[in-house]
Amino acid sequence: MRLALFQPDIPQNTGTLIRTAACLGIAVDIIEPCGFLFTDRHFRRAGLDYLDRASLHRHDSWPAFQAARIAGPGSRLILLTTAGPDAYTRFRFHGDDILMVGRESAGVPADVHAAADARLSIPMMAAARSLNVAVAAAMVLGEALRQTAWADGAVAGVVPSGGQVGDSHHV
Amino acid sequence: MRLALFQPDIPQNTGTLIRTAACLGIAVDIIEPCGFLFTDRHFRRAGLDYLDRASLHRHDSWPAFQAARIAGPGSRLILLTTAGPDAYTRFRFHGDDILMVGRESAGVPADVHAAADARLSIPMMAAARSLNVAVAAAMVLGEALRQTAWADGAVAGVVPSGGQVGDSHHV
Repeated sequence: MRLALFQPDIPQNTGTLIRTAACLGIAVDIIEPCGFLFTDRHFRRAGLDYLDRASLHRHDSWPAFQAARIAGPGSRLILLTTAGPDAYTRFRFHGDDILMVGRESAGVPADVHAAADARLSIPMMAAARSLNVAVAAAMVLGEALRQTAWADGAVAGVVPSGGQVGDSHHV
Repeated sequence: MRLALFQPDIPQNTGTLIRTAACLGIAVDIIEPCGFLFTDRHFRRAGLDYLDRASLHRHDSWPAFQAARIAGPGSRLILLTTAGPDAYTRFRFHGDDILMVGRESAGVPADVHAAADARLSIPMMAAARSLNVAVAAAMVLGEALRQTAWADGAVAGVVPSGGQVGDSHHV
């Protein structure tokens, strides 16, 4: 599983996403141009020291990212969008999928939207416009990992009991 | 499903969590004291206009929150913690559970930890310390809703096909 950020424009959210990916063991593709510098203090503060430990790959442009993806293992590109027709919880993820999020301000252009292998959304209240992009990506990454990397019970640091806690009180 | 914030101390994260809850149709309990004022500009900026539309309940103290919870429908209190023994993906949620997160800086005190009906964690890389609290809560809320409110296919704005997108290209 990988996370791709299409031309990210909010440094705090990008830092938070890289921290999230580092904690979850997921590599990050950043599709340039970014709307900020990697020395931005909001970016550094949100990403903490995870920025230096993350598996980060910067691509000069959307065509460069696409070329690398297609020349590589050919992973599917899964776009998270408020205009997605399908709830992410109904999607069957593969272990090598790339989850992509757009710009906070403008999503992705139509050609990028069309190039995705699937377009997913998060069910929301009718009056709501959108979730924070870091929050939205984290929700979908959690589900993708639940279906793939975490599915076999070999979860680091977790008792692989296969059972549920229910309402018991054991620690 | 409800979200409880135990003495939140980071205004941006609290704003983001309230925005998330409003988008997902989840009420929020804030257990005072907060480490900031509700007029804080970082709080307002992260919460946007969702702050005014959220279902927000402020409790003067932990005992006041507990009294209200127990006198109410008796919902289970599910603590999200890095010290939780069970992966959240292995937990069976109820529709009326309350998911609680602690202070970003210090989690929750031992008595609050002990009072929870369950303590869950998010599987992470061994070297990672913690996720941003808004990111962590969103991941678990997504799973809790997947199991409960979204489980019957009656998901607002989503084609209730019950199928998967797979790698098809339809929009």
